[in-house]
Amino acid sequence: AKSNERTPPPPVVHYHMNNLTTSSDPVTNRETVLILTPLARFYQEYWDNLLKLSYPHELISLGFILPKNKDGNAATAALQAQVAKTQSGPQKKRFASVTILRQDTESPLQSQTEAERHKIENQKARRAAMAKARNSLLFTTMGPTTSWILWLDSDIIETPATLIQDLAAHDKPIIAPNCFQRYYNEDIKMQDVRPYDFNNWIDSPTAKELGAKMGNDEILLEGYAEIPTYRSLMGMMHDSSADPNTEVQLDGVGGTTLLVKAEVHRDGAMFPPFAFYHLIETEGFAKMASRLGWQSWGLPNYLVYHYNE
Amino acid sequence: AKSNERTPPPPVVHYHMNNLTTSSDPVTNRETVLILTPLARFYQEYWDNLLKLSYPHELISLGFILPKNKDGNAATAALQAQVAKTQSGPQKKRFASVTILRQDTESPLQSQTEAERHKIENQKARRAAMAKARNSLLFTTMGPTTSWILWLDSDIIETPATLIQDLAAHDKPIIAPNCFQRYYNEDIKMQDVRPYDFNNWIDSPTAKELGAKMGNDEILLEGYAEIPTYRSLMGMMHDSSADPNTEVQLDGVGGTTLLVKAEVHRDGAMFPPFAFYHLIETEGFAKMASRLGWQSWGLPNYLVYHYNE
Ligand SMILES: Nc1nc2c(ncn2[C@@H]2O[C@H](COP(=O)(O)OP(=O)(O)O)[C@@H](O)[C@H]2O)c(=O)[nH]1
Ligand SMILES: Nc1nc2c(ncn2[C@@H]2O[C@H](COP(=O)(O)OP(=O)(O)O)[C@@H](O)[C@H]2O)c(=O)[nH]1
Ligand SMILES: [Mn+2]
Ligand SMILES: [Mn+2]
Repeated sequence: AKSNERTPPPPVVHYHMNNLTTSSDPVTNRETVLILTPLARFYQEYWDNLLKLSYPHELISLGFILPKNKDGNAATAALQAQVAKTQSGPQKKRFASVTILRQDTESPLQSQTEAERHKIENQKARRAAMAKARNSLLFTTMGPTTSWILWLDSDIIETPATLIQDLAAHDKPIIAPNCFQRYYNEDIKMQDVRPYDFNNWIDSPTAKELGAKMGNDEILLEGYAEIPTYRSLMGMMHDSSADPNTEVQLDGVGGTTLLVKAEVHRDGAMFPPFAFYHLIETEGFAKMASRLGWQSWGLPNYLVYHYNE
Repeated sequence: AKSNERTPPPPVVHYHMNNLTTSSDPVTNRETVLILTPLARFYQEYWDNLLKLSYPHELISLGFILPKNKDGNAATAALQAQVAKTQSGPQKKRFASVTILRQDTESPLQSQTEAERHKIENQKARRAAMAKARNSLLFTTMGPTTSWILWLDSDIIETPATLIQDLAAHDKPIIAPNCFQRYYNEDIKMQDVRPYDFNNWIDSPTAKELGAKMGNDEILLEGYAEIPTYRSLMGMMHDSSADPNTEVQLDGVGGTTLLVKAEVHRDGAMFPPFAFYHLIETEGFAKMASRLGWQSWGLPNYLVYHYNE
């Protein structure tokens, strides 16, 4: 452009939020999906699975947030290499846009082995940090044309290719598939599957009583033998011979794979990094959403798979 | 472009959040400010005051959310006319970008006279709706390069031109000037000023006791003679002869004029549309921010002015 040329006026954009649909047929309605992944470790299987999603890629934007530490550097390099390859590859596979954020705070827990991060005394700080990372990613990447948010952890390595369409077809504000893990079962000497994510649950009177006795800042964690909550865990409801479309109402959700209508987040539902009704992060999110009038749902017989370390 | 031309790869953007500063000298550091305004009524004085802000306009983005009702239609038309004029006018006055959102939900209270909207029985529904509007605007417009958010109500018609620089100079996570109103004082037969926004306050033992006795969903409102809270109101601390830089710590804040470091919102601090520690909307925001480790501050002797209906 010539230097004496008048710069065009900066962009003014006008959006009618009610023209933005979130329907059971998002492909036909050309609804945009923002896939958000907090990513500390890069798995090639995650990326390959993502590329196989049959939802039109031109309607999908990707957002990542990576920790600032050494693990984060390695993961960023691996992610960037794959992003560059995909975004310069066949048109049909390219995503609408990709945003990569590097966190500005250190992770409270550097050690990331499964055993270490699942220790009960490490959970509160770790899940508060995860909540902040999710919020940062969400607040920074959600735009005025986003219809759906798919939360997808970086260690989810296998889902049906029709994941987005299948979940959206239920037309729920918040919906979670059942997150399992493949493993070698020594008892039967065969490959087998087992539940992985225990944050998808229906509340119990016991858990409510435990909560009522707690201090304001205390959290009640799920999946620890030390504190049995008697909540009904979606992980334990799986029946491989039953209808994959079976729906259950949930009071707590996990974030490994979770489809959320953007309006739920827009109303203000985020991932509390503090005790919220004695819940934190994704479980607190389900509670906050319910206070905003949005119900969470789960599909006990529809599986996705978590990496096995 | 020719139809056989290869489309360029879609955008991939990489942000290091720790390179994004929020400092006491934001102009020198070229920090971007997002001014967010929920707007039900358009005031020309608001727009004229906005244009007079001396913070470099190329570092300012504007975001508006307007209700879907008839008032909203009129306000949208008036706003768009001014936006179009400014964005095609002198380069120096133009803003970096402007986003205008129309709400998808009806306002619960159509009547918008000051008397009507301040009635105590209307406050909970009204402030929940305001909280959702603010969240929607925030979640939709905040981007990866936003350093500061300035909340500015559409009926704030007079501020110092150096408002942003002055507030940012205090280098606080959340900071509110004192929101006053000009009026004709019949007693002294002269123009005078009086406090307008009573949501900027320091908590009191009385208010804490009232809260402790309330049900989970009840809210404790400020500025109603029926329920004296004995909180210390910043509106009552103004001393025109004292230092305009005097700072006070606040426990509740209003949203008429409020400068917030973007990282506070990114951590997850939003405007609770439900009772949060018996607080809602902007007052609940201050409480949520404090739970995230961010303190609110006020400047009792630094004034901005609210329209007088
Ligand atoms: N940005 C960021 N992502 C993280 C951090 N820790 C874990 N993650 C990612 O967050 C998701 C959930 O963490 P993970 O350790 O798998 O949780 P778990 O499977 O529930 O034990 C995964 O996608 C991780 O790669 C962190 O400190 N920062
Ligand atoms: N988007 C939107 N903005 C609103 C609505 N009601 C009020 N506002 C705006 O929100 C701000 C605060 O509302 P206002 O009625 O002035 O509150 P008050 O001065 O505290 O009584 C102002 O900028 C209004 O223009 C609404 O229903 N939707
Ligand atoms: Mn995991
Ligand atoms: Mn007002």
